Amino acid sequence: MTALWCELAWLGGEAPEPGVLIELDGERIASVRAGAPAGDARRLAGLTLPGLANAHSHTFQRALRGRTQGALGGSFWTWREQMYALVERLDPDAYLPLARATFAEMVLAGITLVGEFHYLHHGAGGRAYADPNAMGEAIVTAAGEAGVRLTLLDTFYGHGGAGREPDAAQQRFCDPGVEAWSQRVAALREGPAVRVGAAIHSVRAVDPEAAAAVAAWAGERPLHAHVSEQPAENAECLTAHGATPTAVLAAAGALGEHFTAVHATHLTGEDVALLGGAGATVCLCPTTERDLADGIGGARRLREAGARLAVGSDSQAVIDPFEEARAIELDERLATGVRGHHAPGDLLRAATAGGYASLGWPEGGRIEAGALADLTTLSLDGVRLAGTPPEHAVASAVFAAAAGDVHAVTVGGREIVRGGAHVALDVAAELREALAR
Amino acid sequence: MTALWCELAWLGGEAPEPGVLIELDGERIASVRAGAPAGDARRLAGLTLPGLANAHSHTFQRALRGRTQGALGGSFWTWREQMYALVERLDPDAYLPLARATFAEMVLAGITLVGEFHYLHHGAGGRAYADPNAMGEAIVTAAGEAGVRLTLLDTFYGHGGAGREPDAAQQRFCDPGVEAWSQRVAALREGPAVRVGAAIHSVRAVDPEAAAAVAAWAGERPLHAHVSEQPAENAECLTAHGATPTAVLAAAGALGEHFTAVHATHLTGEDVALLGGAGATVCLCPTTERDLADGIGGARRLREAGARLAVGSDSQAVIDPFEEARAIELDERLATGVRGHHAPGDLLRAATAGGYASLGWPEGGRIEAGALADLTTLSLDGVRLAGTPPEHAVASAVFAAAAGDVHAVTVGGREIVRGGAHVALDVAAELREALAR
Repeated sequence: MTALWCELAWLGGEAPEPGVLIELDGERIASVRAGAPAGDARRLAGLTLPGLANAHSHTFQRALRGRTQGALGGSFWTWREQMYALVERLDPDAYLPLARATFAEMVLAGITLVGEFHYLHHGAGGRAYADPNAMGEAIVTAAGEAGVRLTLLDTFYGHGGAGREPDAAQQRFCDPGVEAWSQRVAALREGPAVRVGAAIHSVRAVDPEAAAAVAAWAGERPLHAHVSEQPAENAECLTAHGATPTAVLAAAGALGEHFTAVHATHLTGEDVALLGGAGATVCLCPTTERDLADGIGGARRLREAGARLAVGSDSQAVIDPFEEARAIELDERLATGVRGHHAPGDLLRAATAGGYASLGWPEGGRIEAGALADLTTLSLDGVRLAGTPPEHAVASAVFAAAAGDVHAVTVGGREIVRGGAHVALDVAAELREALAR
Repeated sequence: MTALWCELAWLGGEAPEPGVLIELDGERIASVRAGAPAGDARRLAGLTLPGLANAHSHTFQRALRGRTQGALGGSFWTWREQMYALVERLDPDAYLPLARATFAEMVLAGITLVGEFHYLHHGAGGRAYADPNAMGEAIVTAAGEAGVRLTLLDTFYGHGGAGREPDAAQQRFCDPGVEAWSQRVAALREGPAVRVGAAIHSVRAVDPEAAAAVAAWAGERPLHAHVSEQPAENAECLTAHGATPTAVLAAAGALGEHFTAVHATHLTGEDVALLGGAGATVCLCPTTERDLADGIGGARRLREAGARLAVGSDSQAVIDPFEEARAIELDERLATGVRGHHAPGDLLRAATAGGYASLGWPEGGRIEAGALADLTTLSLDGVRLAGTPPEHAVASAVFAAAAGDVHAVTVGGREIVRGGAHVALDVAAELREALAR
C-alpha cells in the first residue's frame, strides 16, 4: 500500500491539519490520519488540497488565448464569430494534440477532474465523421494522455436560435435530433477515469421539447446547460417562450441535484429560487465572464437559496482555478461594495467537492477515507505564499495562490505532476506545436 | 559599452519587433536597433518590455496578505482597523526587512520602479524617532537592497477626519503641520535611483488649506493623493466642504500634470473633466479595489477626457502588474457589458510610461535612445504564453501573462533578475523571515 505524508492538508476545516498521513488503496484513499509521523511515506511539502475540478471547459478555445482579447470594441457576440472561425479549422487530428496540451496545462494548475462541455461533434456542413464520435474520442484520448480525470458532457445542439437554421459553424455542432444524439452518445466508451454526461447547449440552441428529451435521457447522469450568460439570451427566450431560460429548463424537467447551470449571470429572483430549491449546481466561470463582458452573477444569493457552487475555466483565456475561486468573492465585492460573502473554505469547496459532484464524481473532491485519491499540493516556497502561517493557509490559497504555485498533483493515486512539471509531457512544447497548426 | 539583444521587444507599436539590439551607456539606453544580429550581446529570450512601474504601493501591507481577505462580512472600514493594528507593531528595524522583501517580490514580478506612498512616519503616540525620517530611510535602504528604483512619496496626514483627532494608529502618520512636514521631507536624501515626491493622504485626513500648502511645496515634484476610493469618503467631503474630493483638490491647486489621483473610483462627470483637463494621472489599483470592495472606476472616460493611466499594487494582496493592467479593461467590461475599452498597448503604457511619468521619471518607461535602461523580459516558454505568435504577443502579455512569467529584469542597466531569480536575495526566505516577526 502506498502512503503520502502531507506537511499540511486541508480536510475541510477553517485551517489545514499538520502532518497528515494518507494511505492509498489503488485509486482510492484508504485512511487519513492527522498529526502522524512521515515514516517512509512519500512527502508532500506545502499545503495539500483535494484535487481541483474544472467544471466547465471548452478545450479548443485555448487556441483563442491572446488572439481575441485585444480588439477594440465588440461584445460576447463578436467574440463568438472568432470562436466559430476557429471551429471551421478543427478536425479530430488537430483536436487531439490541442486538447491534450490544454488538459496538461490544467493538470499543472492543479486540476484533477475536468468537465468538457463538448459540442464540436461533426465535420464541415455537419457531416458525421466515419466514427461519429471521433471528436469525443479525441477528447477522451487527450485526457487520458494528459492524466486528468474526465467527464465528457456530450452536448445536444438543435439549431441556430429559435426558428433559425444553424450557420456553417453551428452545423458542426448539430445532431439531427435527440434520438440520433442519444444513439451517438450511447456509443461513447467510459473508463475508470472517464464518465459521460449530457448537456443542453442553451435555450438559444435547444427547443423546450428537445431539452426535456435530453433531460429524460440524462436521468442520474450529470446534466449541464449554459444559462443566462447574456441579457440578450434572456430577451430572446422571453420572446420565444414567454419565460426565462431557467424557467424553460425547469418546465423541461432539467433541474435537480444532477443539473448544473453554467454562468447563471442574469437571473431573476424566481430563477434563483428554482435553482436553489432544486439543489442544482451553479458553475461560475469568472475569468471568462470578465473577458466576455458577461457581468457579475449573484453567487451569494444562489448559495443561500440552496444551490451548490462550482468553477470552470470555460474559454481558457487563463487557466488558474485559484483565480476563478477568489473571483467569485472579489467580483461580488465589486458589485455590492461589501466584503466577505463567501468563506474561504466555501470557495475552496466550490473548486473541489462542488465540481466533483457537478461532474458525477461525488466520491471525489475531499480528503477522506473512501474518496478518490485526487490531490493537489501547493508549494509554500514561492514568493506569493512564502511566510503563510498554517492558520491562514486556506485563505491564502484562495486569495493569493496562483496556478504556478502547484508543485504536485496526484490523480487516482498516480503522480502526474512532480516538482511543478508534468511527469510524461513537455506541456509548453505540446502547446507550441498544437497552436502552430 | 554593454549591449543586450532581445528576441522580441515592444517599442510601443501594436506588435513587438524581432531581434532588437539595445546598447547601454551606464544607466541609459544609448541606441535601439530592430532586426539586428545578436553578435556578442547578452541575449534576452522572450518578450522584452520597458520596466514596469508600480505607481501606488504601501509595502508594509504585504504583511496582511492572506490574513484579512477571508473574514465573513466587513468592508473597507473594517479592513482599515486590521491595517491599523499592524501599524502599531512596526518600527524602522521591523520595517526594513519587510520592505526589502516586498520590493524584491515586486522586482521578480517585473517592477523596476515603485512609488511608495509613505505615511507611517512616527512611533507610538506620534513621537518622532531620533531620526524623524527613520522610517522613510528604511524604505530607501530597502529599495536599494532590492534593486528597484524608488519614488518616496512622503505623505502629509493632518488628522483623523474633518474635525476629528487622530486615533492611536493615525497619530503615527501625523506631522504637526505642513511646515514641520516639509522640513522633515527636505532632509530626505535622493540618489541616482531615488527621488522624493509628495502626497496628500486624502481629503479625509488633510484640510483644504493644508492640501494647498503641500501642493505649493510639491511644485514640479510628483504629487499623489487617494481620491474617492469609497462613497463614504465623498459623502463626508460633501458635508465638510460642500464639494467632491476632486473639486477640493482642484481648488487647492493640486491638480496638474504632476498630480496623480489614486483609485478615483467614485467620480462625478465634473471630477472626470477636472482630472482630464489638468492632464493628471489616475492610478488604478484593481486587485486592491476588488479586495476592498471599492467598486469599478471609469478608466475609459478618464482616458478620453485627457487623463493618463497608471497602475499600483497598493495593498499587496497580490503583486502582479499584468493582473492589474488587464483588470482595468476586464473590470470595465463587467461594469458595461462591452469589450475593448482600452487597446493592449494602452494598458501596457499605463503599466510602464504612465507610471514612470506619474512618479517623476519621465525619462523612463520606454525602450528608446536616451531612456533609462529599465527592462522587463517575459519568458514565452511557460504554459501560459507558450505558442504566442509575435503579432499577438502584446495582447498576450497583457491578458495572459503572470508575474511568474518574468525571467529577466534590468534596472538602470544592472541585471537584477536572471532566470526568474533575484541575483542578490533569496526573496522567499526574506519574506518568511520578515513575516514571522
